[in-house]
Amino acid sequence: MDSEGDVALSTDLYELTMAAAYYANNEESQATFELFVRSYPRNRSYLIAAGLQQALEYLTRIKFTERHIEFLRKHPNFVAVKEGFFEYLRNFKFTGNVWAMPEGTVFFTNEPILRVSGPIIEAQIVETNLLSIVNFQTLIASKASRVVESARGRGVVEFGARRAHGPESALLAARASYIGGCIGTSNVLAGYKFGIPTYGTMAHSFIMTYDSERDAFDRFARAFPSNPAFLLDTYDTLEAAKTAVSLGVEPSLVRLDSGDRYSLSRKVRRILDDAGMKSTKIFVSGDLNEYSIDQLTKRKAPIDFFGVGTELVTSRDDPALSGIYKLVALEREGKMAFKVKTSKGKFTVPGAKQVHRRISRGMIQEDTIALDNEKPPPNTKPLLSEVMRTGQLVTNIPTLDQSRERARSELQSLPAEYRSMHGSVKAPVRLSTRLQRLANSLWKNANR
Amino acid sequence: MDSEGDVALSTDLYELTMAAAYYANNEESQATFELFVRSYPRNRSYLIAAGLQQALEYLTRIKFTERHIEFLRKHPNFVAVKEGFFEYLRNFKFTGNVWAMPEGTVFFTNEPILRVSGPIIEAQIVETNLLSIVNFQTLIASKASRVVESARGRGVVEFGARRAHGPESALLAARASYIGGCIGTSNVLAGYKFGIPTYGTMAHSFIMTYDSERDAFDRFARAFPSNPAFLLDTYDTLEAAKTAVSLGVEPSLVRLDSGDRYSLSRKVRRILDDAGMKSTKIFVSGDLNEYSIDQLTKRKAPIDFFGVGTELVTSRDDPALSGIYKLVALEREGKMAFKVKTSKGKFTVPGAKQVHRRISRGMIQEDTIALDNEKPPPNTKPLLSEVMRTGQLVTNIPTLDQSRERARSELQSLPAEYRSMHGSVKAPVRLSTRLQRLANSLWKNANR
Repeated sequence: MDSEGDVALSTDLYELTMAAAYYANNEESQATFELFVRSYPRNRSYLIAAGLQQALEYLTRIKFTERHIEFLRKHPNFVAVKEGFFEYLRNFKFTGNVWAMPEGTVFFTNEPILRVSGPIIEAQIVETNLLSIVNFQTLIASKASRVVESARGRGVVEFGARRAHGPESALLAARASYIGGCIGTSNVLAGYKFGIPTYGTMAHSFIMTYDSERDAFDRFARAFPSNPAFLLDTYDTLEAAKTAVSLGVEPSLVRLDSGDRYSLSRKVRRILDDAGMKSTKIFVSGDLNEYSIDQLTKRKAPIDFFGVGTELVTSRDDPALSGIYKLVALEREGKMAFKVKTSKGKFTVPGAKQVHRRISRGMIQEDTIALDNEKPPPNTKPLLSEVMRTGQLVTNIPTLDQSRERARSELQSLPAEYRSMHGSVKAPVRLSTRLQRLANSLWKNANR
Repeated sequence: MDSEGDVALSTDLYELTMAAAYYANNEESQATFELFVRSYPRNRSYLIAAGLQQALEYLTRIKFTERHIEFLRKHPNFVAVKEGFFEYLRNFKFTGNVWAMPEGTVFFTNEPILRVSGPIIEAQIVETNLLSIVNFQTLIASKASRVVESARGRGVVEFGARRAHGPESALLAARASYIGGCIGTSNVLAGYKFGIPTYGTMAHSFIMTYDSERDAFDRFARAFPSNPAFLLDTYDTLEAAKTAVSLGVEPSLVRLDSGDRYSLSRKVRRILDDAGMKSTKIFVSGDLNEYSIDQLTKRKAPIDFFGVGTELVTSRDDPALSGIYKLVALEREGKMAFKVKTSKGKFTVPGAKQVHRRISRGMIQEDTIALDNEKPPPNTKPLLSEVMRTGQLVTNIPTLDQSRERARSELQSLPAEYRSMHGSVKAPVRLSTRLQRLANSLWKNANR
């Protein structure tokens, strides 16, 4: 899908109807919106921020073309909208300021990870696409970190393109999985676009193309003499392993894609070892997730690599991140107002905020969410930094490898209870006294 | 993400390593692959085919550029690959034949919905991206049809862009939801690209921008005098309803996004009716799915429209469709061979196949999967038709509205047991006697 030039329309219609209403009302307030996650996906107790690079690219590129404007002008909702608004769209650029947690940052519920301030129309229109970008990659980076943790040091390769939610989703899932700790992906485009290492062996169809498994292995080895990799489970895994070791060439790896991966990996390892092929790696795939990998590595199955597809790229056990983007402050005619929503179960915390993290002896102790102009609590570091000012990038975006390294090192500072595979524990997060007081008073007096 | 020109690399690396091995072995077989779904997502007993249009566009466009080839040439897996293969990629075009079920077709497990025949390298390389396209849209069209059924005639609007798996996923989900029976989407880009009706009102942030809810409603009504739509649950839903009816303008609709939607819709309906605003519609949203909508419509909640987001665009109760693409036949030097895989629990059925549907008194009775050269069973119609011959489209692709209409009419011919919200029932599908015999004999003698 070629939607690059059409990214301005990648938004919910209500963002544009609101924009028209703001325009009609000469609404020139400066608004601040914050993106945060209200609750964890199932069994999670932390998240890993991802998607900021695509979010910033989007903010830099958003532009309404004449064809877009023509489309809107004819839309039934816009028939009564005055020409001035379309003229406004014609000149639209994102000119706001953005603060964000760098990709790879470990964060918790209710912490703002992205803060957008600017003319209210601009800050509003970008809501939908920012959420779509950040929610998905954060979901997958977080899931990947769980899978990688369950692998206990063995390499995990993202394998899920065919079950991802479309080709772009596959590409972004590969990126987010890499941030979350995967060593690479099967997705060639992710290698090409993002420099992520790509992995691949052969499919069952290659074996089935030839009259015998031996013939198929032989032919593959001839094409890749230095590093042939064989898929063993097309017909019978152990027979295939015996064939593989009898070819006179040491495979770089063998892959098992079905059956009882624990007992098969042990038996295949023995066949390889008995044939003196101790450096041949065992690569296991097929509907794996953090729960099944945890069992395999706990039992010390002799597996060197895991390929994880569907379960990773769809975050199958909980496939949506409930990130939201809420108005928290408004500056109109020089006066600042804090904003809250008090819908049942959906209270928001007012004001532009910063998150201060206290780390002691290398471990995360507590995060304090405070107003952005509060004095930081002692011995803390702020998690949000300025990334865009008046629509321009003001920082070097970290490389993908730097983001991956950040996630790795932050996860090491995360106490074990938060990294548990099962159940979620309360986020180590508090509001500053001043923020709590402000929130209480606004919640009580929510405007009608 | 601008990946249009790079779509050739949207594939798993093993497709390309196999291609290189086929090339090195002068493998010029004509292969037939079939795409089918082995098992239903949770609680489903039928599926709706979707994504064919994007699949065919992909097959028409796939092309390796010099930059792609340079990337592959430097890839560690390809260092020993000879120049001839890169030259082959440089001239690569998809020249195969494709048969498919039209979008909107109701189908069952194990039925081929797409069949690709052509030179084996071509048919192999396209596997990953075809699966990614067809799996996702089929998953969402099928989910949408459940949600629409639960709405019992009330309109369902797809609302999920912000929680979709990235912006392209949001766009494709809107398309698939429309095929599955939604009346439209909130996604403006889906309206622009596919002509899908788009819907939108206002967000909580619009209300929060002004000092009072009344002021916000007033200002919105001034911008949209003929069709103002008000969101009621920013602070207190019933207070907001009273405010909405006191403005002297009849809203086209009001939206409830949180709280007990059953009792709130009844109370809001009464407030509207008491104010003589009987034609104001009630639009309900907020974490809805087919299960909760079923409860609301069973109890006759006075709701006119449902907006369904996260649960629909991620198919949240089961977010992956296990569509696979398997080699079923191979023609080499004029000789045809049927192909099967016998991995544990993953047997495949050999041969290029057709699906014949028997409909009686307007209802689907049974599908027979037969070899494509078998005589059709009496009183059946074939479900797969030729869509591409030697890489060229040979049919007019139905419009999106035609595909949506096909789904609607096919669902009407689907017996109620298959449309149940809970549990899945056995697919009404059998193999023809000849196909069953062929499969049995190949499974027994699976090649080693």
